[in-house]
Amino acid sequence: MKIYLAGPDVFLPDAVEIGKRKAAICARRGVSGFYPLDNAVDLAASDASLAIFKGNEAMMDAADAIIANLTPFRGPGADAGTVYELGYMAGRGKFCLAYCNDPAVYAERVGRIDRVTKSGNGHLIDSNGLTVEDFGLPDNLMMIHALDLHGAGLVTPRQRPADIWRDLTSFEACVAIAAGRASGRTA
Amino acid sequence: MKIYLAGPDVFLPDAVEIGKRKAAICARRGVSGFYPLDNAVDLAASDASLAIFKGNEAMMDAADAIIANLTPFRGPGADAGTVYELGYMAGRGKFCLAYCNDPAVYAERVGRIDRVTKSGNGHLIDSNGLTVEDFGLPDNLMMIHALDLHGAGLVTPRQRPADIWRDLTSFEACVAIAAGRASGRTA
Repeated sequence: MKIYLAGPDVFLPDAVEIGKRKAAICARRGVSGFYPLDNAVDLAASDASLAIFKGNEAMMDAADAIIANLTPFRGPGADAGTVYELGYMAGRGKFCLAYCNDPAVYAERVGRIDRVTKSGNGHLIDSNGLTVEDFGLPDNLMMIHALDLHGAGLVTPRQRPADIWRDLTSFEACVAIAAGRASGRTA
Repeated sequence: MKIYLAGPDVFLPDAVEIGKRKAAICARRGVSGFYPLDNAVDLAASDASLAIFKGNEAMMDAADAIIANLTPFRGPGADAGTVYELGYMAGRGKFCLAYCNDPAVYAERVGRIDRVTKSGNGHLIDSNGLTVEDFGLPDNLMMIHALDLHGAGLVTPRQRPADIWRDLTSFEACVAIAAGRASGRTA
């Protein structure tokens, strides 16, 4: 089984190292991890961003599954590029897995960065009056239920790990589910 | 042509009214707009979020195209649910359109909420040391180039409109592109 390894990990200073750790975990479990940075792109070229896109899309098209890192990135929810990729893979009918190293529900995450109150009709709103999703889910319902219906439910740790960007325990749990499916076992 | 109307518009206090305005613009241009809130969902039911997901996915599966509102939501980039839907529709091979009422490039948007500096090797990083995409694009490259390759380029106004959530000028430009395609003209 070929697995596309999506996540804001590519924005970390040690992005290449994280990718190697993830690929090694995949290999130990008998599956193959494809990491975006495996594509060689000349970042100085004028069309570098398009080359990155094409490389990532080709990797996704070649993969059987995705494991997306939905740990909150620059806000209360997951990284947009990663979410796009999860949607793309769901649309292509691929097996969708994801983890998130922050187990807090979405309303709590929004409350960390903004004032969340109850509106006149009883639902949660932020300081701009925009509704705050309050279904007890860790992130937007489209991603969470996509996983439930197109793969396996979001994997989260019981507690936020000390290093939210480098703890791969929940990632490895996803790999185990993928490996179980690849070998025909029900994970 | 049936168009799925994606966006954080559904979180506005006047979400239903915005949906009606968008559908009316579509009708005037001879195409059909499908708005998530057109699905009847009992929000008090215990499985409300799953019912919303299933309704939205069925709408997307029935649609030929998507017009996604990628105006920044609760952070420097687009709403996660909307981005998921854009990815899903790209994966399904549908015609992908989007607009964004904030024309600022991504690095500038991050600079509004965080300190952006140059790292030792010359690329932009935020206060956590995470890379800030610096390709001169308004949002994550996966969405922007998906539009270029699976539909038409992101539509943005020259200037941020006074009411960023209710100005539908750029939305209407997307509808015009869709209508042009529906009628066989090159938009």
